[in-house]
Amino acid sequence: MNKGKFITFEGNDGCGKTTISNRIYKQLLDEGYDVIMTREPGGIDIAEQIREVILDSKNTAMDGRCEALLYAAARRQHLVERVIPALEKGTLVICDRFIDSSLAYQGVARGLGIDEVYKVNEFAIDNAMPDATILLRVDPEIGLARIASRQQKDRLDEESEKFHHLVAQGYDEVVKRYPDRIRVIDASQSEEEVFQATYKLIKELVK
Amino acid sequence: MNKGKFITFEGNDGCGKTTISNRIYKQLLDEGYDVIMTREPGGIDIAEQIREVILDSKNTAMDGRCEALLYAAARRQHLVERVIPALEKGTLVICDRFIDSSLAYQGVARGLGIDEVYKVNEFAIDNAMPDATILLRVDPEIGLARIASRQQKDRLDEESEKFHHLVAQGYDEVVKRYPDRIRVIDASQSEEEVFQATYKLIKELVK
Repeated sequence: MNKGKFITFEGNDGCGKTTISNRIYKQLLDEGYDVIMTREPGGIDIAEQIREVILDSKNTAMDGRCEALLYAAARRQHLVERVIPALEKGTLVICDRFIDSSLAYQGVARGLGIDEVYKVNEFAIDNAMPDATILLRVDPEIGLARIASRQQKDRLDEESEKFHHLVAQGYDEVVKRYPDRIRVIDASQSEEEVFQATYKLIKELVK
Repeated sequence: MNKGKFITFEGNDGCGKTTISNRIYKQLLDEGYDVIMTREPGGIDIAEQIREVILDSKNTAMDGRCEALLYAAARRQHLVERVIPALEKGTLVICDRFIDSSLAYQGVARGLGIDEVYKVNEFAIDNAMPDATILLRVDPEIGLARIASRQQKDRLDEESEKFHHLVAQGYDEVVKRYPDRIRVIDASQSEEEVFQATYKLIKELVK
């Protein structure tokens, strides 16, 4: 019964999620917590192979539902090989993106339908929902401006402004579904302010 | 509205499905039908890549749900790239295995649950269910004896006798769900008898 807590970070591209979650991880590690930081595909060989199929630039014919199923498959393997074993040992697991990304990006922004994408992810997750989720909410224009300064852009970074607005709208719908699990933080503040607000929340969650 | 018919063949390993469906295909072709014969992954590049991940002998750590999601992803892409375009042109499509294989093999024999596996496949198929399905029912021992004489065995051929019995039980459950769509043929008969019984059924379906 010594189960660890499972905390995920979510938000639009450029919301600062990766920076903040890594600072939280290091802070908790310094404080002596038994904590790991991960993200899909998390170095899990099978999940990496699936990700290669998703991201292969030759696969322009890939159907949206096929893509959603592949993300769910990679998520399942990462969960089974990395997240669940850590939770069973009582470790606190912090994960950069999880189910809510699929609901917002594929369910809403790609237009597959949030209920439809949920069904597939429900099968993948099999009750291993996060104990809590931090959503770093940022105006999509601010997120896009932050992304614009990045040296390397990935396929999603290159999506249209409209797409990023749809993702933000998607997250708003997801928050309405899970008001207890998802805690929203205003990520248009300075990095230090966002970090402090997140840290305060996390400390309540893990105490 | 000139939509083609979509007919799938199902059954335990060694039921004679591939032999019979190919004979039916050739017969209909000779009679001048606009017909194609296919099977997943059907030479579709993305579906082939997914199949490679599923069948890679190094991937022994693959979780059953991950596998089910990958099969559904490959099914989706094959459906979108090959089956649906043919049906839209009014072509008769014969497919060796489809959703019922996942329900019987993964839902029942692998123990994931038929309802659970259906949900994922429902997402993959998105209403493109077969118009009719021919189930070649054979006693698992007879199927296994036929397989035993094959030169090359694949991973599923090597499964235990118990597994093949569970698959047969799985198909029985699937037939109970879809009594109108699935027509059962006794495949313990001679190849010629099975072919004639199947041909008679198919001719009723396509007239």
